Amino acid sequence: MLRNNVSIVGATGAVGTEFLSILGQKQRYFSTCIVHAGPKSVGQIVPFGEKELSIVETSLEALLNTTHAIFCANSTISSELVPQLVDRGVFVVDNSSAFRQSKQSKLVIPQVNGSRISGDQLLYSVPNCTTIILLLAIYPIHSHFRVKKVVLSTYQSASGGGAKLMNELESQTRAVLSGEEAILNVAHEPYAFNLFSHNTPIGPDGYNGEETKVVLEARQILEEPELDINVTCIRVPVLRAHSESIWIQFEDKAPTEDEVREILSSAPSVTVLDDRANNRFPTPALASGKDEIFVGRIRKDLSDPKAMNLFVCGDQLRLGAALTAWNILERLLN
Amino acid sequence: MLRNNVSIVGATGAVGTEFLSILGQKQRYFSTCIVHAGPKSVGQIVPFGEKELSIVETSLEALLNTTHAIFCANSTISSELVPQLVDRGVFVVDNSSAFRQSKQSKLVIPQVNGSRISGDQLLYSVPNCTTIILLLAIYPIHSHFRVKKVVLSTYQSASGGGAKLMNELESQTRAVLSGEEAILNVAHEPYAFNLFSHNTPIGPDGYNGEETKVVLEARQILEEPELDINVTCIRVPVLRAHSESIWIQFEDKAPTEDEVREILSSAPSVTVLDDRANNRFPTPALASGKDEIFVGRIRKDLSDPKAMNLFVCGDQLRLGAALTAWNILERLLN
Repeated sequence: MLRNNVSIVGATGAVGTEFLSILGQKQRYFSTCIVHAGPKSVGQIVPFGEKELSIVETSLEALLNTTHAIFCANSTISSELVPQLVDRGVFVVDNSSAFRQSKQSKLVIPQVNGSRISGDQLLYSVPNCTTIILLLAIYPIHSHFRVKKVVLSTYQSASGGGAKLMNELESQTRAVLSGEEAILNVAHEPYAFNLFSHNTPIGPDGYNGEETKVVLEARQILEEPELDINVTCIRVPVLRAHSESIWIQFEDKAPTEDEVREILSSAPSVTVLDDRANNRFPTPALASGKDEIFVGRIRKDLSDPKAMNLFVCGDQLRLGAALTAWNILERLLN
Repeated sequence: MLRNNVSIVGATGAVGTEFLSILGQKQRYFSTCIVHAGPKSVGQIVPFGEKELSIVETSLEALLNTTHAIFCANSTISSELVPQLVDRGVFVVDNSSAFRQSKQSKLVIPQVNGSRISGDQLLYSVPNCTTIILLLAIYPIHSHFRVKKVVLSTYQSASGGGAKLMNELESQTRAVLSGEEAILNVAHEPYAFNLFSHNTPIGPDGYNGEETKVVLEARQILEEPELDINVTCIRVPVLRAHSESIWIQFEDKAPTEDEVREILSSAPSVTVLDDRANNRFPTPALASGKDEIFVGRIRKDLSDPKAMNLFVCGDQLRLGAALTAWNILERLLN
């Protein structure tokens, strides 16, 4: 009965590998799965549940029999192929930023605005990982207590820069610990035991591309075009989970700390870890590989009765990309 | 003519070692220098400029001939010895938090409230490193454009936890890179490629000790008891310089970005690094070992005309402790 043919484009990258590990456990939802990547990877064998798959080169021809394509490659590849597939009636879930601001695409976090997923809509964009982690924490609160302003400082992991940047963090750190010179191939600043402002280009307003994405995407997903949101994106020497220090100012009096804990405890994909007595709060190590964000340091702003703070950690590759793509795809396959 | 006998208590710790390296270059200011530490270090030889000194055990008797004592040990040692020395007319510069909130002591950053240093005042406390780095950036702006509120998220290095935590960051990282289990002796969370909420105890208001110190100290030093300041302190896997993401809201319209650059360019111990075209901004690697803070990412809050952002890095051990202690001592020796 199943006629769904799923294709993954960019299956060997950091997000593609994570997506494949999820999809391998979901084979009951589709009949075939084809894995695509660039010419260098053709013929490479990748694990798929208890099976294995062989990489096929990415091309329009190779994708024409697919019913559902998941793009885990860069924006250039998405820009070229996605419109041609959509024109042919293929459902596309795109992890790149290529169509996030396009009217053709729906920008969706299923736990937040999943009502936008429907059989009439072919193209979906997965938001930026930083946006996903932010909104999984903020949206449930915003539904009860209207958020007026957010000041966000991020602690972003290497995985946001792909497998290459993760490898470089490790290789630079090995070099520094051996007293050798660290070689910079991917990072624009030394990365071992160091941090730096996110390397996306700076716009005329002084904000980098990552910061601007978070602002635009958060407003779009929450359908709050006037939401005040001020973002600083920093890359830290952590491998694969992002952290976010979030200051929230509400339209009216802030909820109590217990109200926020209660709301978040029943929110989807959220675990509250706020153990003051034992000083146990979310960390990237804890969040790595997990299907939920962790929220803690829930506390009032002592000088502003309308404001409060959260500290959030979430796996950038899994929750912030691959799992969100799967959660969209799952509804389209049903 | 010089009758000044300087003593350093805690000379073998992370701050003590840094202070000694500064003092070794300043021998023209005093006649003798005695270096003190705990019983385990007695007899250990430490470099002092082109000379060497031998560690003497810390005790009241051993300190009685001193005219100027610098405490680089923990609060317990300061609490015990400092009052006895002050009673005997000794000038004391204390790096611990023991007397920072005491009326007996002046809490001083020479570049900010150096006018409080005088021959009539014996006891001085060096503020917390996070406070020093914050106020070196904010005070010059506040002098021209009154600051109403600050939202601060920190990226604090291992050195704030002393040489033990720096060593543990290295040893845990070595273990992880070798595929071995990381052993936690000092840190309360895994530290290799990880970050965590500052480990000082959490008060009843949900803020940890580090965060509370920054609030109290900033208000005291700026003489602004009502200053709104909301702080989140996070420890990152960086060795010895702190970073701070600072959102500032002014009483009136915010200064322009160029006005802030101009003010900070002529402020003491500040270098502006805000190169948007080349994506070059402050990093802890750049700030390590330097006698100034680096400030960049100077940009408006796009949704609040009264607010703006800064990103600041400063060497926690040097600028945030030892050099500030020296700058106080220098005025007392003159």
